[in-house]
Amino acid sequence: MTDSLDQLNAQLLQFARERDWEQFHTPKNLVMALAGETGELLEHFQWLTETQSATLSDDKKQQVGYEMADILLYLIRLAERLDIDLIAAANEKIAINAIRYPAAKVRGDARRADDYRSYAVDQK
Amino acid sequence: MTDSLDQLNAQLLQFARERDWEQFHTPKNLVMALAGETGELLEHFQWLTETQSATLSDDKKQQVGYEMADILLYLIRLAERLDIDLIAAANEKIAINAIRYPAAKVRGDARRADDYRSYAVDQK
Amino acid sequence: MTDSLDQLNAQLLQFARERDWEQFHTPKNLVMALAGETGELLEHFQWLTETQSATLSDDKKQQVGYEMADILLYLIRLAERLDIDLIAAANEKIAINAIRYPAAKVRGDARRADDYRSYAVDQK
Amino acid sequence: MTDSLDQLNAQLLQFARERDWEQFHTPKNLVMALAGETGELLEHFQWLTETQSATLSDDKKQQVGYEMADILLYLIRLAERLDIDLIAAANEKIAINAIRYPAAKVRGDARRADDYRSYAVDQK
Repeated sequence: MTDSLDQLNAQLLQFARERDWEQFHTPKNLVMALAGETGELLEHFQWLTETQSATLSDDKKQQVGYEMADILLYLIRLAERLDIDLIAAANEKIAINAIRYPAAKVRGDARRADDYRSYAVDQK
Repeated sequence: MTDSLDQLNAQLLQFARERDWEQFHTPKNLVMALAGETGELLEHFQWLTETQSATLSDDKKQQVGYEMADILLYLIRLAERLDIDLIAAANEKIAINAIRYPAAKVRGDARRADDYRSYAVDQK
Repeated sequence: MTDSLDQLNAQLLQFARERDWEQFHTPKNLVMALAGETGELLEHFQWLTETQSATLSDDKKQQVGYEMADILLYLIRLAERLDIDLIAAANEKIAINAIRYPAAKVRGDARRADDYRSYAVDQK
Repeated sequence: MTDSLDQLNAQLLQFARERDWEQFHTPKNLVMALAGETGELLEHFQWLTETQSATLSDDKKQQVGYEMADILLYLIRLAERLDIDLIAAANEKIAINAIRYPAAKVRGDARRADDYRSYAVDQK
């Protein structure tokens, strides 16, 4: 009800309406915008080692936080346009992943889901 | 406190620990994984018109919802690793955008921020 | 022999060596850089209609051309690092696609390959 | 004239025409498709260390080669639709980068262009 995502969603709706931007916010366009922001996030990390990526300066961390915020905001906006319950979908996806990647089998191994699916077929 | 993102974060932490996957969840890797999921989201929309993108079938909508969930889950996971408050960053970003794009000036116009910055410089 | 991609590859190798940048050019990093450039390309098109996207101004076209160049350059650089023959792979992929999407069956229909694969299974 | 990219371009044009797919190949859509393929490329590398990313198995290398081919093919297709000379743009971009990143200044340092631009402004 007073959940953080709901509050952000309401603000974004008002923001778009005040600017008459709803006409641009088709799902196709929002997906592109979300992916564009993801590109900006990648650029912050592309030349860092994995270790460096875990020890960002305060300044860098703020910049990265804003890129992540942009992604979240477009995600919320897209969910509103498509009438998708993002939290419900996330909970379902966690449940699916729990079945797809049983802890006992995948411990310490992060291969792609596709690789596991191939494996499953091989074992039949 | 009992916010939806906090609950998802707690579940994801436990999920990673049970699988000994924290070793793979460096910020650099999580950013790549998030971007990979964004690619999957794009693929659902690439050949649709803007109009079609707003009228997905129920089946397609569920698939799209799960891709969006994947993005959200990696975003939460990344925020946890970097100790970033995603909601606070999103609220700050909305405030920044309100200044960067004054409703009176940008009504009905969705050019890129860069274009506005050029414009601002031209008007000086 | 004097193919354009070979010439670009030689220039990029020299460019990286003169700057001692080979240490950063691991395949993982180059893939991220390539994806970052793809994000920049997306940003040019995200608010355009499909029709507008086909009628760019000269200025915009030049900017888009440079983003595409960045993607090509990272692609060439990555192929060099992985010892992959990009042109051979492209020719093979065209041959694979010709089998996967027979003209007689897919005329005027651009669904995803996955959808066709599901279809193929259904018809068995 | 008989350059590899020209040959691929001609094949792709014919491929699209035989399937009546030119209607889907608007620049906006092709950019999305290109970005979708980039996402698939990322997925191959997201859990690999930088070292592992440089020593792929033969099987993995072939898969990665095909993802790279997909990106190249969409890049060529997009260049054709926009009437952009990809090789000329790439050569220009190398020349621009040579000025933007003087070897003497950036040796062994791969910060983002933006960081260098800030630096340049600071030094004025």
